[in-house]
Amino acid sequence: MIFSILDILGLIAFAISGALAGIEKKLDFFGVFVIAMVTSIGGGTLRDLLIGNTPVFWLLNLQTFYIVVAATIISIIFRQYLSFLRTSLFLFDTIGIGIFTIIGIEKGLSINFSPIVCILLGTVTACFGGVARDILCNEIPVIFRKEIYATACLMGGFMFFGLKLLHVNDDVIYVGTAGTIILIRILAVRHNWSFPKIEIK
Amino acid sequence: MIFSILDILGLIAFAISGALAGIEKKLDFFGVFVIAMVTSIGGGTLRDLLIGNTPVFWLLNLQTFYIVVAATIISIIFRQYLSFLRTSLFLFDTIGIGIFTIIGIEKGLSINFSPIVCILLGTVTACFGGVARDILCNEIPVIFRKEIYATACLMGGFMFFGLKLLHVNDDVIYVGTAGTIILIRILAVRHNWSFPKIEIK
Amino acid sequence: MIFSILDILGLIAFAISGALAGIEKKLDFFGVFVIAMVTSIGGGTLRDLLIGNTPVFWLLNLQTFYIVVAATIISIIFRQYLSFLRTSLFLFDTIGIGIFTIIGIEKGLSINFSPIVCILLGTVTACFGGVARDILCNEIPVIFRKEIYATACLMGGFMFFGLKLLHVNDDVIYVGTAGTIILIRILAVRHNWSFPKIEIK
Repeated sequence: MIFSILDILGLIAFAISGALAGIEKKLDFFGVFVIAMVTSIGGGTLRDLLIGNTPVFWLLNLQTFYIVVAATIISIIFRQYLSFLRTSLFLFDTIGIGIFTIIGIEKGLSINFSPIVCILLGTVTACFGGVARDILCNEIPVIFRKEIYATACLMGGFMFFGLKLLHVNDDVIYVGTAGTIILIRILAVRHNWSFPKIEIK
Repeated sequence: MIFSILDILGLIAFAISGALAGIEKKLDFFGVFVIAMVTSIGGGTLRDLLIGNTPVFWLLNLQTFYIVVAATIISIIFRQYLSFLRTSLFLFDTIGIGIFTIIGIEKGLSINFSPIVCILLGTVTACFGGVARDILCNEIPVIFRKEIYATACLMGGFMFFGLKLLHVNDDVIYVGTAGTIILIRILAVRHNWSFPKIEIK
Repeated sequence: MIFSILDILGLIAFAISGALAGIEKKLDFFGVFVIAMVTSIGGGTLRDLLIGNTPVFWLLNLQTFYIVVAATIISIIFRQYLSFLRTSLFLFDTIGIGIFTIIGIEKGLSINFSPIVCILLGTVTACFGGVARDILCNEIPVIFRKEIYATACLMGGFMFFGLKLLHVNDDVIYVGTAGTIILIRILAVRHNWSFPKIEIK
């Protein structure tokens, strides 16, 4: 499997978000690394298991492992510059879901799944790493917080197939999809967008 | 894969039980849907992963997805009529494990597993969705509560193979198995049946 | 799959550690058995899923099942003699990770993975059962506690391939690897060895 630039960027973004979450929880180096690893490979691992694409990607070559180790060490060294930990964590997590949604959709397309199944697969790929990170850190999983999260991935997925229908260039589709997801998420958090709770009348 | 009536009934029962759990936790629509989805596909997904039956069933066609969306919307619309939420949740969960035990056993038989392995597989299929629901909702997992839960599935499994030995009709086996499970569970909860705790003398 | 003595020893050690954890949580017999089962098969199951070795090992024959049932019953009967529950739990857990690291590495070698991937796989095999046990028992997962845990497995893994390079006998490699892991872990706990936390300056 040839690692594309997108894969590497997504891995780095999620690894940094995981490392920052571990640092915030005051874990030791090893604990920080485990959280970074689980966050960055969690979504892709669940995706590969669900579609039966085993051995999972990070067992087939060590590039993933080295990228996460490097991202963890860099996060630890520069942690004082990432002083607004929560903001940095949010930013890297958002870049991560933008990229991983695309990767999940492309994986689905490569085995001829229908668009809706591809979008579901992209959303699982994007969201599960962050959910696993939050469960390990004993936080409420991101997808259950008030903010718009998985919905941004779903909307990005529809943008992906919308642009596909228009036969635009793949690079434009990638930028458009990731951009949509990142923009929706930033706007949602900044303006406190949320869905109404289901009240029991 | 042709969806049988049993499959659909089981999915609906678990989707409603998940949706009610989400409504009780005051999640938004999306959160309620995620809990409904995880509850109804959790057991079957773990079963398919364990036996290597991938891509898992709900990626192969969208029927599961539509059924869960419909059951979620119906649960939300009629939530005031389901005012005894806990009781309704218990009832739908119980119907769900009754049906999913049978489906898990049949799946095991279709790949020539021995009866005891089939019963284990049926129990995993039946119980894991509810366990995942409870972990996500931050409740004590059903199988660790005082009540008889997985044991009802195990007993239903023995009933299944007992009836099989008697060469009775498949429909009778299904009704007998699901009936045994539902009856045991209702009696256990009503009469507070439980196993003794292991005390450290 | 032919069960070796190592497999059986590892299963028994983890089953006892899981059963003791369940007894400490005052679960009933069934709950104690479920924790014992999850602890002893958790690591191997995740390993088999990740490498695509399905149906997973414990569905293929019932030996695992019978061993765990027997170990659970024995743990319950002799629980008053295991009065220093925490110490016994630590000991059996430590023997378990020592043995399961070797089994995971051997599994990786049998499908021609590189040494580092084998060591990762061994560590996952050894650690995940205990992590699952702790999540179910609502404890902080072992790998995030102060003590050296996964690191002992990693070091054992390096010892394994170091001895392999010296072309020593397989039995010596096994004893050396498990011994290294068990020794590091006992010394670490006795002398309170730990990695420094990552402080935010």
